[in-house]
Amino acid sequence: MDSAQENARKQLLNAIKSKRTQLPEAERLASSILQGNRLALAEAITFIESDRDADQRLAEEILHWIQPQTGTSRRIGISGVPGAGKSTFIEAFGTFLCNQGKKLAVLAVDPSSELGKGSILGDKTRMHQLAAHPNAFIRPSPSSGNLGGVARRTREVIHLCEAAGFTDVWVETVGVGQNETAVHAMTDLFVLLSVAGTGDELQGIKRGITEMADIVLVNKADGALMAASQAAASDLRRAFHFMPQKPSAWNASVLLVSALEKTGLTEVETEFQRYFEWIDSRSYREHRRKEQARLWFETLLKEEIWSVFLRKPESIAQFEVLKSAVECGEMTVQQAVRSMLESTFNR
Amino acid sequence: MDSAQENARKQLLNAIKSKRTQLPEAERLASSILQGNRLALAEAITFIESDRDADQRLAEEILHWIQPQTGTSRRIGISGVPGAGKSTFIEAFGTFLCNQGKKLAVLAVDPSSELGKGSILGDKTRMHQLAAHPNAFIRPSPSSGNLGGVARRTREVIHLCEAAGFTDVWVETVGVGQNETAVHAMTDLFVLLSVAGTGDELQGIKRGITEMADIVLVNKADGALMAASQAAASDLRRAFHFMPQKPSAWNASVLLVSALEKTGLTEVETEFQRYFEWIDSRSYREHRRKEQARLWFETLLKEEIWSVFLRKPESIAQFEVLKSAVECGEMTVQQAVRSMLESTFNR
Repeated sequence: MDSAQENARKQLLNAIKSKRTQLPEAERLASSILQGNRLALAEAITFIESDRDADQRLAEEILHWIQPQTGTSRRIGISGVPGAGKSTFIEAFGTFLCNQGKKLAVLAVDPSSELGKGSILGDKTRMHQLAAHPNAFIRPSPSSGNLGGVARRTREVIHLCEAAGFTDVWVETVGVGQNETAVHAMTDLFVLLSVAGTGDELQGIKRGITEMADIVLVNKADGALMAASQAAASDLRRAFHFMPQKPSAWNASVLLVSALEKTGLTEVETEFQRYFEWIDSRSYREHRRKEQARLWFETLLKEEIWSVFLRKPESIAQFEVLKSAVECGEMTVQQAVRSMLESTFNR
Repeated sequence: MDSAQENARKQLLNAIKSKRTQLPEAERLASSILQGNRLALAEAITFIESDRDADQRLAEEILHWIQPQTGTSRRIGISGVPGAGKSTFIEAFGTFLCNQGKKLAVLAVDPSSELGKGSILGDKTRMHQLAAHPNAFIRPSPSSGNLGGVARRTREVIHLCEAAGFTDVWVETVGVGQNETAVHAMTDLFVLLSVAGTGDELQGIKRGITEMADIVLVNKADGALMAASQAAASDLRRAFHFMPQKPSAWNASVLLVSALEKTGLTEVETEFQRYFEWIDSRSYREHRRKEQARLWFETLLKEEIWSVFLRKPESIAQFEVLKSAVECGEMTVQQAVRSMLESTFNR
C-alpha cells in the first residue's frame, strides 16, 4: 500500500470513528467492565440482547470502548448430545480450573430459552457449585435475534467477557446440530463431549459435529462403562483417520474423562494447553480469528443490507406481489428478481 | 384480496412484463424447444450457463416463453456415495424407462467439471447405451456460477427440459454432501443409491443425505453381496424410524436392486409411482413446488442485491478498507457494518 492509499484509508477510518455517538453511559459501563465489575458486565449483556435501537447503539458504543482489551481469552466451544453429561462436566472441569486461578465465563446457548425463558433458573440449578465460584460467570444466551441464531449476540458477549478479564470463555451448545457451526466459527477450540453406547439415532446427529471437533472427550468413563468408553474412544480415533485434515493441521485427539468421579480433568487441561501451543506456534489462532472477523463482517453486512431492503414499504409490497406471481408460475423467478432490482436501484 | 388490490397487482405485473426486451432469437429458440428440438435445447442451455449479460438476457427471455409449458415432469434427485454404482444404475434404470416410452433427461451435477471440463466426455462414455437412446438426453451441469453451486443453472435447465417434453428429469449428484441440499430443494423426489458394506467413513458422509431421502435403493444386491444388502436394508429401515417425519408424511422406503443384473427395476418404478400418487393425493407436489419457487426467489434476490452492492466501485473500496480494519481489530464489526450501511443508503 503506498502512502497516498494509506492516507486515504486513515481518513476514512477517522471519519467513521468521529461519527460515533459518544454516549457517556457507554463509557461509564465500559470502564466498569474493564475493572472486572460483574454487574456492569451483566448490564451490558442486557443491552446486547435487546432489540431496541437505542440499546443497540449503546451496546455498539460499549464494544467500541472495550475493543482494545478483547481477544485475550481461550475461546472454547463445547458441544455434546443430550445425555453426554455436559452440565456435570462443565461443573466439574470448570470448578477444577477456577480453583487453579483461571477466570471462566460459560455462555450457554440454549435453544429452549426462546420458549418459556426457563433456562436461566435451569442454568443456576444445574451448575450450582460452579455458579457460586468467585472466578466463574455463567450466562445463558437466548438464541433469538436478527440473525436467527446464536451467532450475533454470543460473539459480542465473548468480547465483553474478555474485557472483564475472563481467561477462558466457553460457549456451550446442546449438540443437536443447529448452532454448532456458528459456535465453531467464533471459537479457537471446538470440544465434543461424547459418551459410549448412545443409540444409533444420536450417533447420526453427532456425525457432522464430530468432524468439527478438535478434541473429543468420552465422558462417563467409569465403573461399568469403562470398557465401552475405551472401545468408543478407539472407534472415534479410527474415524478421525478418515476425515479430512483440519486447516490447523492439528490431529483431533480423544480422551477419557469421568465428570462424576472427577478423573481425567488434569489430562484434559494438559491437552487444551497442548492444542493452544500447537496453533499458536503456527500463528493459527491469530489467522483464524482474523478470518472469523472478516467472515462475520460479511455475513452481518449481507443480512443488514437485506433487512434494510425489506424495511422499505414499497419494497415489501412489490416483494409480496412478485412472490405470489412466482409461486403461481405467472412470472419466472428471473423476471421477478430483475424487476425488484430495477425498481430498487433504478438501473 | 379486494378488487382495487387485485387491479393494482395486475397493473404491476403488466408493467413488468411490458419491460421485456422481446428478442426474436429467444422466441425462435423457445418455439423450437417446445417442438422437442434437441439442438435448440442444447443451445438454450449454453446461454443459461454463460456468464455474459447478453446471454443471460436471452436465457431469461427463453425461460419466459416456455414458462407455461414447465412443471410437467417428475423431478427426481439421485444421489449416492462414490462406489454405489450410480452410473450403472442410471444407465440400467434409465434405459428400462426409455424402453417403456418415457422421455428422460439426466442432468449430472459434477463438481469435477469445474476443473478441466473433462466430464462431458466422461458422461458420454460412462452411460453410452442410455446416451444413444432416442428418448434420453444426458447433460453434465457445471457447478460454477454466481451462486457458487448447482442451484441456479440446474433449476433453469429443468424448466427447459420440461418444455422440450421430457417426462422425467433426474438431477444426479456425487453424494459427498455439498450439492444435495440444493438438489433436494429443486426436486419432488429424492432418491439415495446406497450399497452394503461401504466403510465407516462413507457411512458418515451418507448420514445427512439419508435423512433427506424419500426412497433408498440398496444397489449391488446380487451374488455374494445379497445377504449383506438385505442386512443393510434392515438397518436403513430401522434408522428411518428414528428420523423426524417428512413434511410430505411419506415414510421413506428401502428397496433392493441390482443395476448389473437388472433386477428390481420394475419394483423401483412401481415405488416411484406410489410416491407420486401419495404426494399428489395430498397436493403436496404442488405445495412443495410453490414453496421451492418462493424460497428460490428470495435466495436469488438476496444474492443479487448483495452482488449489485459489491459492484459499485465506491462500495468495494470502502468494503476492503473496513474488512482489513475489522480483521486487525482497529474497528468493531458493528461499527464497520453501520458505516457501510450509512454510506450506501444515506441514512
